[in-house]
Amino acid sequence: MENFKFANPVKIIFGKDTIKEIVKEIPQNQRVLIIYGGGSIKKNGVYDQVTQALQHHTWFEFSGIEPNPHYETCLKAVELINKEEIDFLLAVGGGSVIDATKFIAAAVDYGGDPWDFMTGKSKINGALPFGTVLTLPATGSEMNKGFVITKAATQEKLAGGSAHTYPKFSVLDPETTYSLPERQTANGIIDTFVHVTEQYLTFDNHALVQDYFAEGILKVLLEEAPKVMTKPTDYNVRANLMWASSWGLNDWIGQGVETDWATHMIGHELTAFYNIDHGQTLAIVLPGVMDVQRTDKKEKILRMGKNIFNITEGTENERIDKTITAVENFFQSLNVKTRLSDYNVDEVGIEKIVQRFKDRKWALGERGNVTYDVVKEILQRRR
Amino acid sequence: MENFKFANPVKIIFGKDTIKEIVKEIPQNQRVLIIYGGGSIKKNGVYDQVTQALQHHTWFEFSGIEPNPHYETCLKAVELINKEEIDFLLAVGGGSVIDATKFIAAAVDYGGDPWDFMTGKSKINGALPFGTVLTLPATGSEMNKGFVITKAATQEKLAGGSAHTYPKFSVLDPETTYSLPERQTANGIIDTFVHVTEQYLTFDNHALVQDYFAEGILKVLLEEAPKVMTKPTDYNVRANLMWASSWGLNDWIGQGVETDWATHMIGHELTAFYNIDHGQTLAIVLPGVMDVQRTDKKEKILRMGKNIFNITEGTENERIDKTITAVENFFQSLNVKTRLSDYNVDEVGIEKIVQRFKDRKWALGERGNVTYDVVKEILQRRR
Repeated sequence: MENFKFANPVKIIFGKDTIKEIVKEIPQNQRVLIIYGGGSIKKNGVYDQVTQALQHHTWFEFSGIEPNPHYETCLKAVELINKEEIDFLLAVGGGSVIDATKFIAAAVDYGGDPWDFMTGKSKINGALPFGTVLTLPATGSEMNKGFVITKAATQEKLAGGSAHTYPKFSVLDPETTYSLPERQTANGIIDTFVHVTEQYLTFDNHALVQDYFAEGILKVLLEEAPKVMTKPTDYNVRANLMWASSWGLNDWIGQGVETDWATHMIGHELTAFYNIDHGQTLAIVLPGVMDVQRTDKKEKILRMGKNIFNITEGTENERIDKTITAVENFFQSLNVKTRLSDYNVDEVGIEKIVQRFKDRKWALGERGNVTYDVVKEILQRRR
Repeated sequence: MENFKFANPVKIIFGKDTIKEIVKEIPQNQRVLIIYGGGSIKKNGVYDQVTQALQHHTWFEFSGIEPNPHYETCLKAVELINKEEIDFLLAVGGGSVIDATKFIAAAVDYGGDPWDFMTGKSKINGALPFGTVLTLPATGSEMNKGFVITKAATQEKLAGGSAHTYPKFSVLDPETTYSLPERQTANGIIDTFVHVTEQYLTFDNHALVQDYFAEGILKVLLEEAPKVMTKPTDYNVRANLMWASSWGLNDWIGQGVETDWATHMIGHELTAFYNIDHGQTLAIVLPGVMDVQRTDKKEKILRMGKNIFNITEGTENERIDKTITAVENFFQSLNVKTRLSDYNVDEVGIEKIVQRFKDRKWALGERGNVTYDVVKEILQRRR
């Protein structure tokens, strides 16, 4: 096991009818900005529950955070915050809304252009306090400090984060997810699945607690996914999927181990250029990463095959093949397509993405050996 | 899954050569009291590492915290703290030292008799800040708010805890555990094992993340225990056992599920009256609790049998028997005795303990049905 130093301070408020609890978490004298997306929270009753809970607070609202939230949109929220002297932010939605809220919270006090946080030009030295009400389990953003923001002007999608960008609290009411479209539920399950593999399919460094926890989360997804597809209003199934998604990326299973993130970084480019859903991009890329890195990741892919898919027969290469197929089959069982051709990304599209990795001189993966030419090989195997 | 509200704020500093990190965690101007036990930390170099790290701080020391720490001893530490105007406490040791430090931290500001915290007569409204350097993985105290204190005068062993009694940080250096006597290593493994079962062997309420995590911790113990008995200086084995012990009782696997604690409560009386090691008492009591509660706990015992011990053959009752035997065999494989007769506790001793549960009118367990007569049955099956 590697050394680590870590705390996760987020207070989780989990369960049925818990949105009303936010009134106990936000001091009465705070001026609150509710931040949300396209308005689904007005259809499923979440908006009403939130505003009811805040009826004795002074609150404002900012809507229109898009999927893959735009830097440009976030800047408008910062303006409103300064104008209305907001003290506390409340993100109500999925990962995009929560990510945007983190970026906004950090941007408020910063004198310069907050895109500096994304390029690494500047560090985050403070942020407005904020809480979240999660309605789409997927990104784990409700229980971590990270955020991913897209600059529409340049089609750049980059990640940031700071000790200042942890939510003070996150409300997870599984009933808010009953009305999710199947596509979003599936994307969320895939996102969680890949968060886990990014932290698990790396080195075999004998970090057994982390390995078993990672495998536990994957097992929950495999067990509950078929159920949620047929019965989307089963409380326990929704609860398990919601809780699994937070654990997929609350950073505990990634402590003491090396992490990968190549699948995410390649996927981000597919979203930036082609606007493919984040979950869909991961379903395309992960099998390619496993295939191309089958030697480096051998021990952990074999372990995954055995412990998750009960694959124990055949040569090592055969078992690795079977494991990759099992992963791809799982994604397809959620009615998610797993090939670039399914999304009309052709050879020219692959070149465009590869060029970006070449320009940035990135070397991804837990071994730092996923250079642009390896990215090219991964994408070509996923045509 | 049940509703819950929870945060665990403890910062973990994990790994080789990490004790020196405490200097970054305790402000330079704080007057520090180092609290420890019988002096093993002077033999294994931990005391030297701690005092070296604090060389630019003003620090004092208080030694002599006994296993099953005494209320009476803690009061002496409170006196010293008041006299020397201590700002920050540093527990260096195992669960007893950390538990004592929590109680001491809470007692310092309290006007009345701090035993009130244990009897529930008074609430903890504040505590001195403290950190820990863990040297004996077992109780999970380094990553939770709970403590157990014994009043020597009355042979009472009671549990307390408060949001104010979380460590600010805990240093977990697996190398500090290389020199532990086999008996303490074994006790720690059993303590962790039983912490997990107290949160896992209750209702089958479809909380799958919690179930898989609980099973993961148990698997780590079963895999690593034989290795540590033969090679106590294997870093990864010690690291896995240390990290597993924190997760056994950092309260995450107990969120959203009902918990038991009957084994611990009965075990505490065996310690209070007979001074049997805490881990040993659990090894005696748990098989009895599983046996007597085999109907209530059926689903979870069967699940444990299948997922932990690969027990799938036979009737339900036979599988339950096999699972209980497997648990008892595991404890015995650590050279820990599992019967009351091994410790010379006879029928009169059982009656003495049962009387105490009768007097307190306690009804233990996740179903609140472990009354004094059930305690009697449990203990009689463990003669």
